[in-house]
Amino acid sequence: MPGNKAVIFKGPGSVAVESTEYPTFELKDGPGVNPANVGRELPHAAILKVVATNICGSDQHMVRGRTTAPTGLALGHEITGEVVETGPGVEYIKQGDLVSVPFNIACGRCRNCKEGKTGVCMNVNPDRPGSAYGYVDMGGWVGGQAEYVLVPYADWNCLKFPDKDQAMDKIRDLAMLSDIFPTGFHGAVSAGVEPGSTVYIAGAGPVGLAAATSAFLLGAAVVIVGDLQKERLEQARSFGCETVDVSQGDPKDQVEQILGEPEVDCAVDAVGFEAHGHGSDAQMERPATVLNTVMDVTRAGGAVGIPGLYVTGDPGAADEAAKVGSLSIRLGLGWAKSLAFTTGQCPVMRYNRKLMMAILHDRVQIAKNVNATVIPLDQAPEGYADFDKGAARKYVLDPHGMIS
Amino acid sequence: MPGNKAVIFKGPGSVAVESTEYPTFELKDGPGVNPANVGRELPHAAILKVVATNICGSDQHMVRGRTTAPTGLALGHEITGEVVETGPGVEYIKQGDLVSVPFNIACGRCRNCKEGKTGVCMNVNPDRPGSAYGYVDMGGWVGGQAEYVLVPYADWNCLKFPDKDQAMDKIRDLAMLSDIFPTGFHGAVSAGVEPGSTVYIAGAGPVGLAAATSAFLLGAAVVIVGDLQKERLEQARSFGCETVDVSQGDPKDQVEQILGEPEVDCAVDAVGFEAHGHGSDAQMERPATVLNTVMDVTRAGGAVGIPGLYVTGDPGAADEAAKVGSLSIRLGLGWAKSLAFTTGQCPVMRYNRKLMMAILHDRVQIAKNVNATVIPLDQAPEGYADFDKGAARKYVLDPHGMIS
Amino acid sequence: MPGNKAVIFKGPGSVAVESTEYPTFELKDGPGVNPANVGRELPHAAILKVVATNICGSDQHMVRGRTTAPTGLALGHEITGEVVETGPGVEYIKQGDLVSVPFNIACGRCRNCKEGKTGVCMNVNPDRPGSAYGYVDMGGWVGGQAEYVLVPYADWNCLKFPDKDQAMDKIRDLAMLSDIFPTGFHGAVSAGVEPGSTVYIAGAGPVGLAAATSAFLLGAAVVIVGDLQKERLEQARSFGCETVDVSQGDPKDQVEQILGEPEVDCAVDAVGFEAHGHGSDAQMERPATVLNTVMDVTRAGGAVGIPGLYVTGDPGAADEAAKVGSLSIRLGLGWAKSLAFTTGQCPVMRYNRKLMMAILHDRVQIAKNVNATVIPLDQAPEGYADFDKGAARKYVLDPHGMIS
Amino acid sequence: MPGNKAVIFKGPGSVAVESTEYPTFELKDGPGVNPANVGRELPHAAILKVVATNICGSDQHMVRGRTTAPTGLALGHEITGEVVETGPGVEYIKQGDLVSVPFNIACGRCRNCKEGKTGVCMNVNPDRPGSAYGYVDMGGWVGGQAEYVLVPYADWNCLKFPDKDQAMDKIRDLAMLSDIFPTGFHGAVSAGVEPGSTVYIAGAGPVGLAAATSAFLLGAAVVIVGDLQKERLEQARSFGCETVDVSQGDPKDQVEQILGEPEVDCAVDAVGFEAHGHGSDAQMERPATVLNTVMDVTRAGGAVGIPGLYVTGDPGAADEAAKVGSLSIRLGLGWAKSLAFTTGQCPVMRYNRKLMMAILHDRVQIAKNVNATVIPLDQAPEGYADFDKGAARKYVLDPHGMIS
Repeated sequence: MPGNKAVIFKGPGSVAVESTEYPTFELKDGPGVNPANVGRELPHAAILKVVATNICGSDQHMVRGRTTAPTGLALGHEITGEVVETGPGVEYIKQGDLVSVPFNIACGRCRNCKEGKTGVCMNVNPDRPGSAYGYVDMGGWVGGQAEYVLVPYADWNCLKFPDKDQAMDKIRDLAMLSDIFPTGFHGAVSAGVEPGSTVYIAGAGPVGLAAATSAFLLGAAVVIVGDLQKERLEQARSFGCETVDVSQGDPKDQVEQILGEPEVDCAVDAVGFEAHGHGSDAQMERPATVLNTVMDVTRAGGAVGIPGLYVTGDPGAADEAAKVGSLSIRLGLGWAKSLAFTTGQCPVMRYNRKLMMAILHDRVQIAKNVNATVIPLDQAPEGYADFDKGAARKYVLDPHGMIS
Repeated sequence: MPGNKAVIFKGPGSVAVESTEYPTFELKDGPGVNPANVGRELPHAAILKVVATNICGSDQHMVRGRTTAPTGLALGHEITGEVVETGPGVEYIKQGDLVSVPFNIACGRCRNCKEGKTGVCMNVNPDRPGSAYGYVDMGGWVGGQAEYVLVPYADWNCLKFPDKDQAMDKIRDLAMLSDIFPTGFHGAVSAGVEPGSTVYIAGAGPVGLAAATSAFLLGAAVVIVGDLQKERLEQARSFGCETVDVSQGDPKDQVEQILGEPEVDCAVDAVGFEAHGHGSDAQMERPATVLNTVMDVTRAGGAVGIPGLYVTGDPGAADEAAKVGSLSIRLGLGWAKSLAFTTGQCPVMRYNRKLMMAILHDRVQIAKNVNATVIPLDQAPEGYADFDKGAARKYVLDPHGMIS
Repeated sequence: MPGNKAVIFKGPGSVAVESTEYPTFELKDGPGVNPANVGRELPHAAILKVVATNICGSDQHMVRGRTTAPTGLALGHEITGEVVETGPGVEYIKQGDLVSVPFNIACGRCRNCKEGKTGVCMNVNPDRPGSAYGYVDMGGWVGGQAEYVLVPYADWNCLKFPDKDQAMDKIRDLAMLSDIFPTGFHGAVSAGVEPGSTVYIAGAGPVGLAAATSAFLLGAAVVIVGDLQKERLEQARSFGCETVDVSQGDPKDQVEQILGEPEVDCAVDAVGFEAHGHGSDAQMERPATVLNTVMDVTRAGGAVGIPGLYVTGDPGAADEAAKVGSLSIRLGLGWAKSLAFTTGQCPVMRYNRKLMMAILHDRVQIAKNVNATVIPLDQAPEGYADFDKGAARKYVLDPHGMIS
Repeated sequence: MPGNKAVIFKGPGSVAVESTEYPTFELKDGPGVNPANVGRELPHAAILKVVATNICGSDQHMVRGRTTAPTGLALGHEITGEVVETGPGVEYIKQGDLVSVPFNIACGRCRNCKEGKTGVCMNVNPDRPGSAYGYVDMGGWVGGQAEYVLVPYADWNCLKFPDKDQAMDKIRDLAMLSDIFPTGFHGAVSAGVEPGSTVYIAGAGPVGLAAATSAFLLGAAVVIVGDLQKERLEQARSFGCETVDVSQGDPKDQVEQILGEPEVDCAVDAVGFEAHGHGSDAQMERPATVLNTVMDVTRAGGAVGIPGLYVTGDPGAADEAAKVGSLSIRLGLGWAKSLAFTTGQCPVMRYNRKLMMAILHDRVQIAKNVNATVIPLDQAPEGYADFDKGAARKYVLDPHGMIS
C-alpha cells in the first residue's frame, strides 16, 4: 500500500502538506468527522490516484478563519483522478478509469438524488442535506488535495472520461468539471442565460470567469464582468468579456456605457458573502452589496443566479446580523422588478457530462479562461497564499507530476 | 352619457364614494396621473359597465397611509364588467361581452408582453415596468371601484367569458380572476406545487386562501396555512387546509406536528412587507419575519413563491432600512438549502383563462373559499374598514346591483 | 427458505400458476433470459414477499401471442411487496419495509438514470435501453406475479411507504403506483394537462382510466374518455368523466357536443398498437386509428401523450408494414397543427413518490376509478381471461392473502 | 404613391416579376385571398419598403406545382424592410424604423398569440390556425417578394432593429430572422440541443444549415449534417459541421464513424415531405425516409425537432396515402426509444429578438453559413431556378438596391 500526502488546514492563515493515511473503505474518525459518520462502511467507494485537484475560493473561507473548520482538516473538493481500487459494491467504474468527481458527495439513492438535486443529498451529511470533501460541517469526508482520495458511491459520483489519452491532453480543462465550471454554468443557467442574452457577472474570480465562459457557451450576446481587481478584469477581457471596475463606483452607469441601457437580462452573483463595497466603500466588507447590485442592474422580469456562497454563520463578520447570515437586502427592489433568485450549491452532476463533451470537442477553453496554473502538491501553501492575494489564477495541484 | 361614481381615497384611513367623470378614450389629468400619460389617446380601449370589483389587500396599503398615494385617487384594480363601448382600434372584444380584466395593465406590444410578462409591461407606466388601475405610482390609470371604467388595449387585456348567463351564475367566483385567484395560483406555481406536494402558505387573507385553493387545484397532498387570526384560520380549515397559529410561536414545530417532519416541499409568502412577528412578537411589525419563516420551513431543494407585496419605499416603516425596502433576510439559510425565490406581481394573463375554465366546469370554489361577500358600491367604506380589521372576507362591490 | 409460485406463460392464450424457484442474488438462466445476463450477480438486490401484483394490459400482448415471448416465462411487472432479505450492497432499504417497485428496472448509475430517464436505463437489458420484470425482450428479469420476487438495485428502485399500517389500509390504491397510475399520469403530463385543460383520452382500460384520474388530479376542467365498450365507458363516468362511444363513429362530433367545440387542449393515446377502428370499422384492427384520431381532436398548438404501447415487431399484425411497427400516420395533419408527441415507457420513478403522497392524503381514488379487483394468485388464469374479454376491472393478485 | 413590383406565381415551374398594386390598409380580393378576408380593414398595419426578402424552400413546393396555389399569387414570406407608413392603430412602430417581419402572421390578441404560439394564430386565416404572407391556403395575405408590402398588426409583428446603420451593416444576417434562422433554431431547441449535445440534422438546405448554426449557438459539441448533395455538404463543413452523404447509404454507420457510437442525442428533420430515399433509393421520393432515419439515429430518451414541412394534401405525391398526408412511419421504433417529437411552423416571435442580439453582437454568422446570395428582385426567376436545382445558396432579393 502506498503512503499518502495531503494539504492540511493548520489554523487561520496556514496550510501545510503532510503525510496522511492511505484511504480505506471505511470513514474513520478524524478532524471534523461527524460522529454519526465514524465507522461508516463504504463498499460502494473507489480509491483514486489524484491527477488534478484545484484550490477553490471556498477553501479560502476556511483558511482565512471565517468558519469553524478544525485544525488538521484535510482540504480539497475539486478532484480528478484515476481509479486504483474499487469496493465490492462498485459495478461500472473500473480500475484504470480516469474520472471527474463532483464536489457534492451524493448517495444516488435518496429522494433528492433521484430528483437530480445532488447538492442536497440526504444521506451523506448527518447535519443537514448536502456535503463535500474536505469541508467544515459537511460530514467529515476526507479532502482530495492529496495523492490519494476515497470517493463514496463511485458508480454514481464518478464521471468517466471516454478516452484516457484524449482526456490527459485536455486535463487542465477537464479538471474544472469537478466544481467551478459547472458552478459557473449553474449560475448562468439559473440566471436564464440563453442565446442573445445580455449578462452581468459580479466577480472575476474563477467562478465568475467560469460563469462568463458558460454564458458564452449558452449563446449570450454580451457578457459583462465586474470586479475590483484590474488583473482579474484583464483576464475577463482576454476572452471577450466586457468589464466593469466596481472600485470606480456603481456598476449601473458602466453597464449603460457598454450596452446603451443600464440593465441586463440576466445576472450572476459569483462573489458571495465576503463581498466588498463599491466605489469609496471598496475596501470595506459589505456582504449584501453584490446582491443589491445585481438586483439593480437586472431588468424587470429577469433572473439572478447566486452561486456565490452565503453562509448560515460567519464568526468573522462585521456585524451581529451578518454573523448569523442575515443580510440587509433591498427585497422591495427585487419584488418591484419581478425578479427570480436561485441560490445554493451547484448540483454538479446535472451539468458535468455536457460540459465534458463541450471540452472534448473543443467548444470551450475553460482552463485558459480561468488561467489554470498547475503546481506540484508541495507548493499548495504558496498557491493558497497567492490566490488569497487575488492572483488572477486558478491553481491546479498535480500530486503525481502527471500533467505535462 | 351616464354619470359615474367611484371609491375615492380621501387621506389616511378614509375612503368615500363620490361622483366622478364617465370614462373617455383619453387619459386625462387627475390625482396621481403621471404627466407623461396625460392626454394619452386610447383608441384601443373599451369602456366597461362594472359588474363586480373587489377590495384588495394592496388597496389597504394606500388607505392606511403606508404609501405616497395622493388624495383624490380613484381606487380599484379588480374589475369584471360588461363592455358598453369600444374604441376604433378594438377588433375582437365587442359591446355586450362580459369580461374579466387583469389588474396588470399591459400593452400587448412590448418585449415583455410578447414574452408573457404582462406584470412588467414597458409601455403603460412611464415610471417603471408594470402598472395597475387605481394605484399609486402606476401611471395614473383610473381605478375600477366604480360604475364605469376604461380598459386600455382591450383586445389584449380582456378575457371574455364564453357564455354570459353561465358566467353570471358564477360571477362571485369569476370576479376573483382579475387578481387574487391568479395571484395565489402564481404563488403556488412558483413555489413548485404539483401533485403530492406538501405546502406551507403564510397568510390566510384572500391571497393566502387563493394560494391554498390553487395548491389543491394543482394536486397538493397537504396544504398548511399560517396566520395570527383565528377567524381566518377557521376559514382556511373550511375547505380542507391544515392550519398553524403563528401567534403561538414558530411555525416549524406546528408543521412537524401535522406532517411528522418540520419542513414542506413548497412555501408561499402571501403576507408581504406589513408582516407581524410570531409568538410574543405577534403584535409587532416584523417585515422580514415571513420570509425568514418560509425559508425555515421549506425543505432543501425547495422553492418559495412570494406574491405578497414588498415595496421600494415604505414611509411608515419602523426602521430606516425598511423605509427604503431593505429587510434583514437570512439569506445564508436559504442558500444552504439551495432554495429558489420568485417575487413580483402575478402576470394574470398567464393564468386567468385556465382558472376560468376550472371555475366554469366546477373544479374549484374560489368564492366560497375566500368567503366572497357582495356589498353595494356605496358600502365600500364599510367594506374597507371591516377588511382592515381582519374580517375573514373578500369584499366584492356590486355597483349596479347585478349580482343576485 | 420458502418455496415460490408464479404465473407462467404457457403459450398463446394460456397462463398457469406453477411452483418456481425462490429468488437468489444472481440472475440464473431460464426462459427469456438474455445470455449476457445469465449469472449476473445482484448484491444490490432485495427479495420481496409480494403483497399485491397486478395484471397489466401489456401482459395481454404476450399472452395473446402477439409477441415472441417464450413459453415458460414468469409474468408480472406491477409489484408491491414487503422486503424479506437484502443483499450486502443495499444500505437504506431494510427488511420489513413495505415498498412499491417501478415496472422499469433501472440501475441508478448510468447516464439515463442520472437524467431521470429510468425507462431507458442502459445497464439492465443487453438488447436495448429499458427493461421490465417478466417481459419479452427485456433482459430476462423474473416476473413478479409470484409469491416472492427479486428487485435489483433495491435502494434505487424501491419506494418505501412511510407507515406500514397506513399503507396496508390503502394497499389497493398504492398497488397502482408500480405502473398504471404513473403511466396514465405520464400520458396526461406529456399531453400538457394543467388546471383548466380540456382533455381527450383514447381508451377506457386501466391506463386510460388512470390517465383520466391523473388529468383530474392535475386540475383539468373536462376529461373526455373514448372507448368501444359500454361497461368501460360507464366506469369512466363513475368518477366524473364525459365519454365518447367510438363505435358510434368519429369522436370529433361527440367532442363537439360535449364541449361546444370539436377540439380539446390535450390528448392521450392510452390504447396503443392493438387499436380497433371507429364506427363501422369498430371490429377491425386499425393500428393507426387512435393516433390519427387524437391528432384530429387536439387543437392547434396542443400536445399528445402516447403511453399506449407501440412495438417494433408485431408478428400477428394484419399487414406487412404493421408487422415491423410501421403505421400509416397523418403526420401532415399533426404538423399543420404544430402538435408535439411524447412516446415511450413511463419513467415511473419520476412520479411515484408524488402520487403516493396524493393517495396517502386522500387526494385521489385510483383503485376505485380503475375498479381494482383483488383475487388470489391462484385465480390469475381467470383474471387474465376476464380482462382479455374487456372486463372493466383492474385485477390485483394477492399471493399471500394479505389484502383484507 | 409609388408603384409596386412583385414575384408572381405563373403556374408550375414558372415565376415572373410583374407590376402590382401598392399596398393599402385593406385586404382586397385577389388570387388566393380567402373570401372571408376580402375587405378586411387593417388600421393596425404598416407598409414597408422591402429591403431584403428571401426565397424559401417552402416557396418551391408551390412553384413545383405540389400544392393548389393559384396562378397570380404574389409570393414571399421572408421580409425585412423600412416602415414607410403606419395605420392609425399603430402606436410604437414608426415611419423610418427598420424591421424584421416574422413569416407567421399573427394578431397578438387571440389565445394562441397570448400563449406565444404565433404560428397558430386564430384570427388571421379563416381556414385554420396559422398564416403566412404569399402562401397557399394561408388566408390570402399578399406576398413580400416585392418592392412594398403590408404588414398587419405591425406593433405585434414587427421586430425593430435598435440602430439602423448598424443593422444595414449586417443586413444579410438580419434578413434571416424572418424565417430560416428561427425555424432552424426552433428545430434545434425542440430537439433538446444544449451545451455538449451531439446533433444530427437531416438536410443541408438553408433550414438545415440554420439548424446547424443554431446547434452551435446553443453549445452543441458535435453537429452532423446529412444530405444527398455534395455542394451542400461542403457548405456545412465550411463552418465546422461533420457531414453524412446519405446517397452512400444509411446514415447510422456514418454517424458511428464520426462519433464512435451510432446515435446522437438530438435530431432535426429539416427536409420534410419532399424527401428522397437513401443509398440506392436516393433518386426516389420517400416521404417518410427522413423521419424514420432520425428516429433510428436518435438515442433512447432523445428528442426530434421537425421544422421540415409536412402537408395535409400533396396532389403530386407518389401514392394515395401520401396524397392525403399519411406516411408510413416506424412509430414502434420511436416508442421503444421513448422519443419526443415536435412538429409545425416555428413561432418566429419566440426567438427573433434573441437571435437578432446574437447577430448584432457578432456571436453568429448565419448569412455566411447559409451562403446568402443577394440578387436584384428582377432576377428572382433565376434565383428560383437555381435554388430548385439544389444550389447551395440562400437567395436574398434586394428590390431597391439597398444592400451594398
